[in-house]
Formats: sequence, C-alpha cells, structure tokens
Amino acid sequence: MSQPVPTLKQLCKLDPRDHPSLANIIDSELAAKTMPAGALGQVQLLARELTLNRGQWPDQSRPPAGAIVVFAADHGLAQAGVSAYPQEVTWQMVLNFLQGGAAISVLADTHNLALRIVDAGVNHQFADHHLLIKSKVAFGSNNCVNGSALDPTQVDQCLAAGATVVDNLLADHALDWIGFGEMGIGNTSIASLMLSALLGLDLDSLIGRGTGLDDAQLAHKRRVLKQVQQLHLHCWQTAPNPTQIAIHLGGLEIVMMAGAMLRCAQHRKTVVVDGFISTAACALALAWQPNLKPFLIASHCSAEAGHRHALAALALQPLLELDLRLGEGTGAAMAMPILASAFNLLSRMATFKGAKVSERKTQ
Amino acid sequence: MSQPVPTLKQLCKLDPRDHPSLANIIDSELAAKTMPAGALGQVQLLARELTLNRGQWPDQSRPPAGAIVVFAADHGLAQAGVSAYPQEVTWQMVLNFLQGGAAISVLADTHNLALRIVDAGVNHQFADHHLLIKSKVAFGSNNCVNGSALDPTQVDQCLAAGATVVDNLLADHALDWIGFGEMGIGNTSIASLMLSALLGLDLDSLIGRGTGLDDAQLAHKRRVLKQVQQLHLHCWQTAPNPTQIAIHLGGLEIVMMAGAMLRCAQHRKTVVVDGFISTAACALALAWQPNLKPFLIASHCSAEAGHRHALAALALQPLLELDLRLGEGTGAAMAMPILASAFNLLSRMATFKGAKVSERKTQ
Repeated sequence: MSQPVPTLKQLCKLDPRDHPSLANIIDSELAAKTMPAGALGQVQLLARELTLNRGQWPDQSRPPAGAIVVFAADHGLAQAGVSAYPQEVTWQMVLNFLQGGAAISVLADTHNLALRIVDAGVNHQFADHHLLIKSKVAFGSNNCVNGSALDPTQVDQCLAAGATVVDNLLADHALDWIGFGEMGIGNTSIASLMLSALLGLDLDSLIGRGTGLDDAQLAHKRRVLKQVQQLHLHCWQTAPNPTQIAIHLGGLEIVMMAGAMLRCAQHRKTVVVDGFISTAACALALAWQPNLKPFLIASHCSAEAGHRHALAALALQPLLELDLRLGEGTGAAMAMPILASAFNLLSRMATFKGAKVSERKTQ
Repeated sequence: MSQPVPTLKQLCKLDPRDHPSLANIIDSELAAKTMPAGALGQVQLLARELTLNRGQWPDQSRPPAGAIVVFAADHGLAQAGVSAYPQEVTWQMVLNFLQGGAAISVLADTHNLALRIVDAGVNHQFADHHLLIKSKVAFGSNNCVNGSALDPTQVDQCLAAGATVVDNLLADHALDWIGFGEMGIGNTSIASLMLSALLGLDLDSLIGRGTGLDDAQLAHKRRVLKQVQQLHLHCWQTAPNPTQIAIHLGGLEIVMMAGAMLRCAQHRKTVVVDGFISTAACALALAWQPNLKPFLIASHCSAEAGHRHALAALALQPLLELDLRLGEGTGAAMAMPILASAFNLLSRMATFKGAKVSERKTQ
C-alpha cells in the first residue's frame, strides 16, 4: 500500500511567518485611521494578524469569506460509558448537519459561510450528499482502554485526508479563514487525554461534563480516563511525541482536523479554532509544527471545564466567551463576523487626512 | 410654543414585559433542540430575551434585521479642555459617517445594518444627505461648568425628536433591534457625570481617558468634573431625578438617545446599548422608566474606565469584550451578528424528534 499524500513531513513544511514590511504598512495605516490610537482594541490586533497570515493586503474585490469544516468520527472509548449520549448520535447528527437542522447548519447559513461535513470515521455508511466529504479511515477508533486507538497507517491516512479536504475546499471557494469543528460521541474524553499528554497539564483539570454528565457519571469518566492515561503514559514520558499521542489516544476526526489545520496554514489561510476538541487538534498540530501558532485564532472559550486551561497553556486569547459547549464549529461560526469586521475596518476605513478630520491636539 | 410630541409622560408608557405562555413555548422548544441541554449558553438566553421583547415567535419570512443610529452633538464642557481632540472633530466625523469612511460606516455595511446619523446638536450646519436626520435642538449644549447644560424645553425637544427618529426608521425598515451610538467631543465627561448622578457611583471610578488623554490631561479632567459635580449636586441630592440630571448635565445626543431607547421599547424592539456614553443614555432612560430593563442588551464592555462599573450597577451583562473604546455604535454593530445567530437558532434548529436523533441515555 502506498504512503498517503501529503505526508506528515510535507504537511510540516511551514516557514515562520515573517512580513516586516507588511507589518509596518498595517501599523501605519491603522495609526492614520479616523479614530483615537488603538480605539479598536482587540479588533485591530486581529486585523493585523489576519493580514499577516494572508501575507498581503486584504482582497477588496470580494467580501471577506469563511468556511466551517466539521470532522466526525466515532470512538471506541465511548463503549466505556464516558458520554451522556449513545454512540449512534454521531451519525444521526451528521445527517442533521446535512439536512440543515443542526446549530452549525443554521449558523453557516446565517453568516454566509461555506460548510462541509467530513466523515473521518463514523460507524455508519452514509449516502452521497453535496455537503458530505467521504474520508472514512475506519468505522471508529479502537477503545484505548485496551490498547492503541489507531494504528500508524491510520494516522497518516487521517493527516493526508485532512489536507485534501482543505485543498478541495479552497479549489471550490475563495476563502480567508476556515473554522474547524467536530462531532463524535466520546470525544471530550479523547481531547482531555490528548491535551494532558501534549501540554503536560493535570488530567483532572481537563475533564468536564461533556454533553452533560451528572456527578456520578463524571466520577466514572475520571476513573476511566485515569486508567487510559496509566496504560499509555510510558509512550511519551520523557517528552510529548505527537505521533505517538495520535496513535495511542487517537480520535480519527481530531487527527484529520490537525492535518487540515496544518494544510490551511500552508495555504496562508487563518485557522479558526472552535471549542475543546478543536483545541486538542490544534495542540496536536502545534506539537508537530510550532510555526502554525500565528495562523491560529481562538474563536471562543467554552463552558467545558478545561478549555480555559488549554487555551491559556497554548497562549491563545479567545474572541468570544458565551458559555457555549456544543462543538460542531458553532463558536468559530459566531466569531467569523468579527473577523470580517476586522478585515473590512483595516481595508476600508478612511484616514484623518483622507476624510479631512482634525487630528489630536498637540500637547 | 407647543409641547413637543411625544411628551416624556407618553414615552414612559411601557407596561412590564409579561409573556408567560410565550416563555414556556421558548423554553420547551429550546429543550427539544438537537443539542445537550443548555449547550448554547448565553446565546440561548439571548434568543429567549429577544423573542420575549418581540412578544411573538421570530418572523421567519425575512432574515433578522438591525439598524444603528448615531446621535451627534457638541458640548459646552469641551471648552474646559476635557478632550484630546478639538471640538470641530464632531462635525468632521459626522461627514465621515455620511461618506462611508468611519468605522461604523464600514461595520454597518459589513453586517447589512441600516444606518442613520442624527444631528442632535452639532455646532455646524450640514447639507442634506440621505443618511442624515436633521434634529438639531441647538448648536451644542451650554458649558455645565457655569450653569445648566440644557434648558427644560430642550430636554423635551430631545426626547420627542429621539422618538420620531425611531418611528421614522421603523417606518422605513422592518427591524428586530436597534443599536444606539454617538459622536460628540467631550461626551465621556458628560456620561461620567450623569452616570455618577444616576447610579450613585463614585465619580472618580467613572472617569477615564476618553479618546486618549495623557496623565496630566486626565488629572485636569478629574478636577473639572469634580467642580461640575459640586456645582450641580444639590439638585438631586436626596434622590436621582432624571429630568433634573438631564437639564443640569445635558448632552443633547445623550438625552435624545434616551428618548429613542424608550420609543424603541414601546415598539417592542430590542435596544442594543453600545459603549460608555450609550450606557449613560440607557441609565437615564431607565431612571425615567425601569420597565425598559428587559429590552436592553449590552453589546460590549469597552476599555473606557468606568464602563464595567456602570454595566455592573445596571445589571447588564455584555456580550463582547474586545477592548473597544470608539463609540459610534461600533460595539453594537459587532454584536448584532450574535443576535441574528440567536434568533435563527431558536427559530430554525431541528428538534431531536424532528431530526430522529437519539436523546440522552436514561440514568
């Protein structure tokens, strides 16, 4: 069997972002805008980052444009009773995404975002649909209570498929940023394990109620995850090894998303991180290629316990804090109008000189 | 001279919001949506408030729609050197709004919001423009260092004109919410004085750098505002009297905005509060009619010192926190896509039953 393309090595080709002359242009343009210095706060910092990611001035021939890609997969770990919902909800929600009834369907339509749903490894055979990308690597991951969630070939397949999703999406749409969401019963558990392994954070601080566990169920989840951690910890005890972490803890949708994020940055498009699981994917991608960092925008801090810790450890400042805990890319979709605001303010606001507005009094 | 219409008394006719059966419908609909209970956090609470304000289910025959109204006026107090910018910036920025070069112009266009600029009392004679509403009550307020900023007739005129602005806007556009912004060199000073008087908060805690005062200028602003406070304090020492506060401290754009907010609620439209000055206007309106409270949405908490205190005293929780300090309605405009998200999620998301998605496991 031939190696999936692109390979991890190819996906990690990403030079440090470096546009000093563009940065100077942005800064002097922002300083000349008809507003007190710095009055757009985080929004002008955002405009700067988005433009530096692009590597050139915003395209003014079309409105700013974004997309949401939702990666879906099932998890063997769900058999250990770590979720409040049965596993079939994963494929049922994929159909709901396709039929337009899910939160992300409504938000993508509301904010005019392209939407794609990727079957990375759902335990279900789907019919064709124009929004569905069939990239199934397996009918779910193995239960990591017993051994590795994925095998090394599956990790390679996920990364290559994630990259291809992004390549095809960008061939279909002129985009400035892509938001990365997910669906997969059991995946907050996988994300907690991966984030603990990748960032060296205490596992307990990263475990939350997911879709709504009660106290007894939460205690059970903690016990199960502690057991999984004990089983696999020896594989990266000296230093976090992202490939080993991906193999042992898995998450087909999480690994595929990490590949897609790396590819997105290679295309100089901003990566919009969604919630807790999306943050685990970006932590994995960052462990493979730290140069990804400036391309990441954290859309929101969710109500899932641990998201705040993970964002802080990654030095990502969220744009929104609305107590969301739904996943699907919903936080990313709700943040995208702010990204569009930032881009347009930079490219379209008048300067003091251009608008003949008096400047600050001299002291 | 006849009394301006509507009068304050007419503007204060607002029954407490009371729709228990609609509230039940919203709550059971939200509980049935294809998501874990409460997973949309603040956004589903927002959807509930917006719908209760409307008094009926969201209109699904058109997309949710909002507008921004920017009230502009000059302030006699600007002569006391409380701003980093010269007074002519007020009228120059009004022209910038009309020409499409200001931040709010760009944001209104980006998010498809209707925009109106109201000359409430700018020290300039404007030519006609399709976005400009000429409601000039005076060429600026009096300097409240020396006496009352407005006379009682001017307060009545402002309130009536604000109401008329809203009536006409709603005749032109089918809207769900209106955001209220402002422009007026010196108006953070007026807002600090009014908020202190209305809410009983320490004046010093409400004074900030406005458009960017340095330390010496800020110290000067503190001295001037303390002096103004001393001069007028006796007029409402026992209990805050909103009419006396409006007369003594004025702000033609602030009083007109308060009238517009009251009218907006009378039309059962949600009032989207912008920054520090917009918050002073809503505090004034609330002092006249506390039933306005549920109709208010705080779009953001600005970087202007004191905004956080004022919002907390009014029990308003801001949607965004992006360190904005520009006014103009920019925070309100950036929050409106979240309002549209909330409305559409409530009205368009599928239910578990409708989408055939399995519900939570029974314990």
